Amino acid sequence: MRPALTMITLGVADLPRARAFYSETLGWRPVLDLPEVVFYDLAGFRLALFGEDALAADIGLPAARAATGFRGVTLAHNLNSRAAVDALFSELAAKGVHIVKPPQAADWGGYSGYVADPDGHLWELAYNPAWRIDEASGRVAEDRPL
Amino acid sequence: MRPALTMITLGVADLPRARAFYSETLGWRPVLDLPEVVFYDLAGFRLALFGEDALAADIGLPAARAATGFRGVTLAHNLNSRAAVDALFSELAAKGVHIVKPPQAADWGGYSGYVADPDGHLWELAYNPAWRIDEASGRVAEDRPL
Repeated sequence: MRPALTMITLGVADLPRARAFYSETLGWRPVLDLPEVVFYDLAGFRLALFGEDALAADIGLPAARAATGFRGVTLAHNLNSRAAVDALFSELAAKGVHIVKPPQAADWGGYSGYVADPDGHLWELAYNPAWRIDEASGRVAEDRPL
Repeated sequence: MRPALTMITLGVADLPRARAFYSETLGWRPVLDLPEVVFYDLAGFRLALFGEDALAADIGLPAARAATGFRGVTLAHNLNSRAAVDALFSELAAKGVHIVKPPQAADWGGYSGYVADPDGHLWELAYNPAWRIDEASGRVAEDRPL
């Protein structure tokens, strides 16, 4: 199995609420927007929003967990400077996004904090001095030793 | 905030066990392999394995959820045919990977099933006739209406 991920699906309790967060608050344009699922293109792979109960049913699990609390998974959105991280936190806070942890210096040499989407999916917004992020795609363009 | 994801972090209960799954069972080569964290490169973004309790502590949450059960998040690895999905399931089953749902035709026109890593993180292995997957990167190269 080659190291590749095509899509990440976030189970959500309320799809209109989740769609509003990603499409309006964050301003992402869906590549597919249906009543039961929404897809966004993240530089060649997909982020999907799908009902958490329907997702559990598709897998064949008896019931979904509650949509709150720690899921043991985080998504990171990296930027190229501390100032860019601060600016993004300010922008999202002004839009009413839940700030879980304000940005701060991390013991690994970077700078990061966390926000949550309406279902408690956690996004780390971070600057890692070891990584240069391609501004167009958001992918890691360079990974250098610290 | 531009639509971009730099890294996905999977919280794990036992890092050596998780590393063995990704590095040995799946055969992925880490780009960084430390006692407390392992990073893999997935076509320009990173998959990280990190202790679930340490991840919760970094976020500032009081305790991690149990590492089993449905987390409300799935990761998909797409292939370009049903036969390729069947072959990958056979390969992983022979390696002792937990098959959560054997591949089957899906009502959306594709073909998919699920496997789990040792911490219950779910991977959907799928063929979606609407998508052509770039064989080298694993990214969606073409997204055509069904």
